[in-house]
This record gives sequence, structure tokens and C-alpha cells, in this order.
Amino acid sequence: MTHRPGIVVTGASGRMGRMLIETISDSDRARLVGAVERAGHSWVGRDVGEAMGGAPLGVTVTDQPLDAFAQAQAVIDFTAPEATLEFAALAAQARAVHVIGTTGMTDDQIARLEPAARHAVIIRAGNMSLGVNLLVQLTKRVAAALDEDFDIEVIEAHHRHKVDAPSGTALMLGEAAAEGRGVSLADVADRGRDGITGARERGHIGFSAVRGGDIVGEHDVLFAADGERIVLRHVATDRAIFARGALKAALWGQGRAPGQYDMVDVLGL
Amino acid sequence: MTHRPGIVVTGASGRMGRMLIETISDSDRARLVGAVERAGHSWVGRDVGEAMGGAPLGVTVTDQPLDAFAQAQAVIDFTAPEATLEFAALAAQARAVHVIGTTGMTDDQIARLEPAARHAVIIRAGNMSLGVNLLVQLTKRVAAALDEDFDIEVIEAHHRHKVDAPSGTALMLGEAAAEGRGVSLADVADRGRDGITGARERGHIGFSAVRGGDIVGEHDVLFAADGERIVLRHVATDRAIFARGALKAALWGQGRAPGQYDMVDVLGL
Amino acid sequence: MTHRPGIVVTGASGRMGRMLIETISDSDRARLVGAVERAGHSWVGRDVGEAMGGAPLGVTVTDQPLDAFAQAQAVIDFTAPEATLEFAALAAQARAVHVIGTTGMTDDQIARLEPAARHAVIIRAGNMSLGVNLLVQLTKRVAAALDEDFDIEVIEAHHRHKVDAPSGTALMLGEAAAEGRGVSLADVADRGRDGITGARERGHIGFSAVRGGDIVGEHDVLFAADGERIVLRHVATDRAIFARGALKAALWGQGRAPGQYDMVDVLGL
Amino acid sequence: MTHRPGIVVTGASGRMGRMLIETISDSDRARLVGAVERAGHSWVGRDVGEAMGGAPLGVTVTDQPLDAFAQAQAVIDFTAPEATLEFAALAAQARAVHVIGTTGMTDDQIARLEPAARHAVIIRAGNMSLGVNLLVQLTKRVAAALDEDFDIEVIEAHHRHKVDAPSGTALMLGEAAAEGRGVSLADVADRGRDGITGARERGHIGFSAVRGGDIVGEHDVLFAADGERIVLRHVATDRAIFARGALKAALWGQGRAPGQYDMVDVLGL
Repeated sequence: MTHRPGIVVTGASGRMGRMLIETISDSDRARLVGAVERAGHSWVGRDVGEAMGGAPLGVTVTDQPLDAFAQAQAVIDFTAPEATLEFAALAAQARAVHVIGTTGMTDDQIARLEPAARHAVIIRAGNMSLGVNLLVQLTKRVAAALDEDFDIEVIEAHHRHKVDAPSGTALMLGEAAAEGRGVSLADVADRGRDGITGARERGHIGFSAVRGGDIVGEHDVLFAADGERIVLRHVATDRAIFARGALKAALWGQGRAPGQYDMVDVLGL
Repeated sequence: MTHRPGIVVTGASGRMGRMLIETISDSDRARLVGAVERAGHSWVGRDVGEAMGGAPLGVTVTDQPLDAFAQAQAVIDFTAPEATLEFAALAAQARAVHVIGTTGMTDDQIARLEPAARHAVIIRAGNMSLGVNLLVQLTKRVAAALDEDFDIEVIEAHHRHKVDAPSGTALMLGEAAAEGRGVSLADVADRGRDGITGARERGHIGFSAVRGGDIVGEHDVLFAADGERIVLRHVATDRAIFARGALKAALWGQGRAPGQYDMVDVLGL
Repeated sequence: MTHRPGIVVTGASGRMGRMLIETISDSDRARLVGAVERAGHSWVGRDVGEAMGGAPLGVTVTDQPLDAFAQAQAVIDFTAPEATLEFAALAAQARAVHVIGTTGMTDDQIARLEPAARHAVIIRAGNMSLGVNLLVQLTKRVAAALDEDFDIEVIEAHHRHKVDAPSGTALMLGEAAAEGRGVSLADVADRGRDGITGARERGHIGFSAVRGGDIVGEHDVLFAADGERIVLRHVATDRAIFARGALKAALWGQGRAPGQYDMVDVLGL
Repeated sequence: MTHRPGIVVTGASGRMGRMLIETISDSDRARLVGAVERAGHSWVGRDVGEAMGGAPLGVTVTDQPLDAFAQAQAVIDFTAPEATLEFAALAAQARAVHVIGTTGMTDDQIARLEPAARHAVIIRAGNMSLGVNLLVQLTKRVAAALDEDFDIEVIEAHHRHKVDAPSGTALMLGEAAAEGRGVSLADVADRGRDGITGARERGHIGFSAVRGGDIVGEHDVLFAADGERIVLRHVATDRAIFARGALKAALWGQGRAPGQYDMVDVLGL
């Protein structure tokens, strides 16, 4: 291919960072041109492929993000909220597409992305997978089609290392259900059901969080009425789907007008 | 309620017949005005409630369908194809709405409903439940949104008495998936997978049929790609949902223009 | 059959009471000889079959339990803890087998059954189904066979009217898992997981409770390790299984020595 | 560790071969001492780590199995039946434990392992995972505990590349169920259910095979009666469990008396 956009990965040594580096290296639609770690990290100055325990990739890990971004068409970033805000400013300066998979950003932090989005493309999503984004849309649509005779429950399962419950994706699905019904999730969410709860309240949306093993991520949205049920389920078995989704976003963002986008835009759902 | 349409149930002694009689008797939106069985059946001439082992309902089982239909606003019919064709002609003569839940009709038999549909409302569906009809629509939509990287499989489970596989509803879901992809189901259906099958062919749609116990009906539509899966599932636990759907159709049909309709029309999906 | 034990049902008008009356009436191995309701209930003095909206059964509902028990070989009782304690004393006086499906009894209340058990057979179980009792045994066995690399989670789903979480059966399964591992459930139970929980602790047993529609009762015991999972699942779709289990217990108890028994004894598991 | 057995992997370039090499390299309980490929394969003569696209491992791929086996305490072999028979003879000559994960061996081929087993330890299993072997035992036990009111169905799902149906593991589960009931699987197996099948026959065992995406392997054993069901499920999400099981077998076999063993022996189930 004559034109393959150059991509920088931040947080190179993390689980998603490594996955992104592998995915980009294996792709014939993009080139890995940079890998960023924080100053003082043991990987800085080493070839990123060797640091990962594999063959060299010809890219040296750097702690100078702006230098790296300046040579790239896109930055893919699954780090932490404050780091992401810094990277957004630098990516905008470099006019590189900034794909953000960082989770746990507050509303205030999200608002602080706005200046960068005036100069460059920002694509941000709580979950980069095609399937989850489709599930969010289906959930909204089904919640709108069915009345409150159908009780809605969101059940998710993740690996034992996950520290929060319910998952961000489960909450995203709950929000979609609430939106479909025209209610506010905060008013109807049943979380952490335990003890003498009383009968379920009509119109509420329940959440359950299962934790165990190395489960990558499973989400069920249950609509249960008398005599019948519908379940919309997504099962992720390989984190590579998030890396592939992020790469797809980085490619999609090339040549777009500055602004903030999400995966629904990218996937054309 | 001042105006409750009168309804006749055909095949009164069958499993669905009894369920319909109970559902209509319990409803405050309709009245049971007739119950039909074939000539010679032991129930003919008896009160239908008593024949079912309960309290009398004030309706005597008859083997004269036209007499019964003439006093009704609707006929609900879960019998067999040839009986249904006869009932369609008689219901049209009586200008009663004919709700058909009969399965296994051939294309030719369906075509033979046309004359009746010129004079009366016919509402016919392979599955009368709200949930299944919604699932059919979701399946079509998801199949259209995803490419052939996602393998489609339809898995259904039914009680041990079921004599055909896959279920009519499973085939309806398969048709919806094929339509979403713009292919013909006949060209891509994988049925009865067994032995040395070779690798799965891209674009095919597989079917599996589980049989056991008294399972009312469960259908999964699986979309499986590398690293992720979506499942659309419907679980029926009570045949009453089919009876309630049929009653809903009978009420919806009142005052409509003659013609053929299905549950998507009734449910406004 | 020459000898069919006579059975009394307490709490005749309740959901389980009706189910028991139907099950016993339909059985050719037992006879319904009594139906008890509390003084003042509208069913007292009426034929129980007619009160249920069906054909007469020749049994008049009474508010005098001892009179009823005196003519019976067994009493089946799904009522409330204090009523059950009273019935236990009366059943012992009548030397009738007392089958107890009442839930929510405290340890103290259970201890108060002891005097009655000196004179008569008492069979008590949190869940009367064959399948659940088998699942409890499998859970204990699997928990003993696997080490703590396998995280254990119990996930249950019930109808919207259920007022407590997790279900008694889920707790019974959790106890079995803890026993298999040689730990106390109280020390390792994770209930009502919500918010920033931190990573899952090794050796803990998690519980999740889903509520919706008319789900009769579903229980999953998940054992999740890195790379693989085992799930032991029970699905109840018809309350009749609890009534059939109770009837089986009543028959099994005929001629046994006085004492307390449970369903593991009855089922010979 | 002072004594870590040296292990040779055959079929080094295959999917399981690579997985085994990674697992052994990462283990502190064993050492990788050899990697075998067939004569003419492009990996022969190269360092196996580099051939896999990673860092060198200090082991050169060879097409001379006996030379490799002679320096090892165990051989792990997921290849093809005829190759496995050859390796069995050579491993016996070298007095190395031979762990066989090869599938599709005929009864005749299995019989031909006997001479080798007189001189060395052979451990062979259709599925090396702890979970599946436990599931096989549970299936046998549950099938023995329940009567034919419970219909048994085995449902499995695998990736799109699988060429046979049902899976070897599904058949192993079916055999266990048949054994638990005291019948021969050949007499009761329902495979490839499709078309007008008639009602399910009492006592039969059904099989369904789902194919899609990159599903590693999922097996359900369903016991379905009227009103209740039990499901025993195993989900494999990472082929590493098979490699870890094989390594566990290789270590377990050290110092055992010559003979044939299986995973039930290794796991002490």
C-alpha cells in the first residue's frame, strides 16, 4: 500500500499498549512509528519489539511524546485520564488524530478535551469493539419498543483483577436502556442487590457483576416479561478486538474535520 | 367494557386451544362465544369449561364452524393446514377476523388464503409472541450491519414431543439473517451438521436443534467473529404468550380493511 | 393401588398450596384428604376444587388442622415459620409425616422442631427439587476437587416478586461450595458487589441476584480459572417440580422411624 | 530448582506446538530441550524462538527425533496418528515419558501403542484440560443418578476451522453419559437432527455442533426433564490450558512404572 498512516502508541508497556503494538505491526494498512512511556520507565531507549520479548520492530521507546507525535498521523492512547489530557494537547499541536480508549474520565476531564478538538480529530469511546457498540444501539432500540412489562437487567462478567463494578460498558448499556425508555438511569438503577430488598420496582434497571478467572468481558441485557424473555449478549474473548477497533478509528479519522467523534461514527452504525 | 369482541376458538381440545380458551375467558377485552371441534370428537355438545376439567363457561363445543363464526367478530385458529383453509373460507363468509397460528403451511396453501383475504382480515404468523417477532427484526438488522467476518448460527431448543427440526421459528430467524445479508437461505443453510464436514464455509448460516424435557421454545442467533460474539436470544417459558399474542391480533384486526397481515403489523414494530 | 396414603395440604389458597392440591389430585399414588386455611379465610367451608375455580374435589377447606391431620398419613406444608412450628406439633400428635417446604426459618425455629421429630417423621428442605439437591452435591464435590485457582460465583435469577437476595437456594449452594473447600461461607461471601470493590480476593465466593418477569428459579455455580470455566446450572421452569418432590417425600416417609430427614435422604443421592 | 525435567515438543510449528513451547519456556518446573519438525520444514536448523518471531530460546529445530528424545525426560506430542506411533517407539527407546494429545486415533492405532507402553510411560487423553476431565466424570455420575425422565443432550461450539462434528470431547461426554446409564452410545446417539425426525426417543442422547468465529471449545451436557433442567458446562477460552495439562502430565509421569495412563490418573480425580 502506498500510503499507510504512521501511528504512535502511548503507554507502550501496558497490556493494551502491547496489544496495540502487535496489532499495528501486523497490519498492512498502518505503520508503527512511535512508542511512548513515561520518563524513567525501563523500556525508554530500547527497541519496543525487544522490550516485549520478541524480534526488534525498529521503533525506540521514547519519553518525549511531542517528538513522536510530530512524525505520526495518529496517536492511540489507552492510559489514564490526566495523561490523556496532556496527550490530547500535544496531538492537537501535531495535528494527529487522537484515539482515546482511556476509561474513568470525569465529565470535567471530558470537557477539557474541547480545546484540542478544535484543532484536531478526537475519537473517544468507553469500548472500542464493533460488537459492544452495536449492542448499545440494539439495547436502546429494544428498550424503546417494549413497555415496562419487560424488566431490564444488565449482567456482566469480568476477570478477577477488575476493581470496579458494574463495568463501564454495563453502565453504558444501562444508559442506553434508560434513554430508550425516556428515563434517567440515576432514578431507576438497582445496584448491589442484597438482603431484604422487597419486590422489584416496575421500570427499574438492575445490575449484576460477576468476577472470576481471566474473563475478558461478557455483557447480557435481559428483558424479562411474564412468559418470555429477550437477551442481547456480547462476549469478548480477545482484547485484540479493542486494538483492532482503535486502529480502525485511527484510519477512519484521517482527513476528517476537527472535532469529537465516537465509535458509532467510525462504525457507521 | 361496553364493546368486547366475541371470539371463537377452533381445535378447542388441543394444547393451544385450551390455552386460548383460558386466555380469552380471563380477558376483560374480549368474550369467548364459541369453541369448535371436529365432528365425532367427545367434547362436541359439552360445555367447554367442563370438558377442560374446570367450571362451566357457558359455551357449548360445536362441530358446525359456520354457525359459530356467524356470531363472532374473530376466529383464532391453531389447527392444521387443510382445516385452516376451510376455516378461512367460512370466516370470510362470516366477515370475522381470522387469526392463524397454524404452522407447516406450504407456499401453495398460503396462496390459497388469498380469496378469503379479499373479503376479510387474515392475520397469520409462524410465531405470535412479541419477543420472537422483535428478535426477527433485530436479526435482520444485525445481519445487515455486520459483514461475513461474523459467522451466523441459529440454535433452538424445544420439548421432546416436537417432530420437526429446525423449528419454524428458527427458519424464520435464518430467513431474516439471509435477507439482512442479501442472500437466499437455501444457498447458505448448514443443517444437520455431522461427521467430516470440512471447515465452515464463509457466509453460511448454521442450524442446531436441541430436544428435551418440556422446553417451550428457546432460540439463539449467534454472530461469531474472531475475538467477539453477539447473541440475540429469545426464551419462551409459557405458551400463554402465543395465546395473548393471538388475542392481541384478533382485537387489532377489528375494523381493518380486508387483506393479509402479520404480527409485525399488529405489534407496530 | 390398594394403599394410597391420605395427604393434607396447608396454606391451600397460596401458590404452592394450589400446586400441591393439583399434583396430589392427579397422582395415582396418593389421595388428597384435607386442605387447611387460617380461620376467617374465604375458602373455609368450601370445596377446595371449586374454590380453585375448577371441578369439585370432595374435600372441604377447614380451619381445624388437627381434625384434618388425624385422618391423614402426611401433611405437606409450604407456609410460614411460626405456622409451621404449630403444624409440626399437631402432625406429631397425629403421627403424620410432616413435609416442610417453608423457607426463612431461623436456626432457633429449626431447633424448635426437635420435640415433634421425636414422635414423627419430619422431612424439611429449602428446595424440594431433585435437580437442585443434585446440584448442591455436585457443587460440594467440584469445590473439593478444584483449588482456589478457580474462583467460585453463584448467580441466580428469580421473578420480580421475590423480596430477598440472594435466594435461599443460592445460599445453600454457597454453603456447599464453602464446605467442599473447608471454609466458612460467612468468611468468604462477596454479596452485593458494587462500586470500587478492589480486585477479587482469592478464595472468596461471590453472589449475584437477577430479578425479572416470572422466572421460576435459575441457579449457576461458576468455577472460573485462567483459560477455562466450569458451570453447574439448574433451571426450574415449573413449580410443579417442588410439589412433586414434596409428594415424593411424603410417600418416602411412610413407615420410617421418627426423626428429621432432608431431600438427600429421600432422593438417595 | 535443581531438577527440572527436559522436554521435547514435536510438531513445533503447529498451533499447539507453539503453545507448548511458550508454556514450557515460561515454566520454572521444566526445561525446553528439543523441538522437532518433519524433514524439509523451513524451521529445521533454526532457533525455535526466532522461528516463532520472538527472542532466541537456545534450542534448534531438528528433524531427527531420536537424537532429541535421547536428551529428554519427556516428549509432548500433538501431531497426527501415524507420526505419533513412530514417536511412541522412539520415546520408548529413549525411556522418555510420552504425552499424547493427538486426536483421531483409531482403536487399531491405539492398540499399536501397547509395545511402547511396556518400556515407557505413555499418557494419552482426548482433552488435556482439568475442567473437561472433571466434566466427564460429573456427566457419568449425573447420568447414573437420574433416570430416563431426563433427556440428555450434548451441545458443543468450536471455531470455524474445525472439520469434524461432533467434537471428540463431545463424544467423550456422550460415552460417559451412556456409561452412567449402562447403555451403548452407538445404540442411542441422535446426531445431525434435521427434517421430520419424529418425537425424541426416550433414553436417546442428542448431539449438536455449533461452528463460528474463533471459539476455542465449549461443551454443554443438558439433562432436561419436565419442569427442570441441569446443565454441566465447560468453556475453554485459551489453548494454554491444554498445554499446561500436557506439561502437568509430563511432570507427573516422571518415575512412574511403564504403562498407559490418562488425565484422570494425572489429575487424581
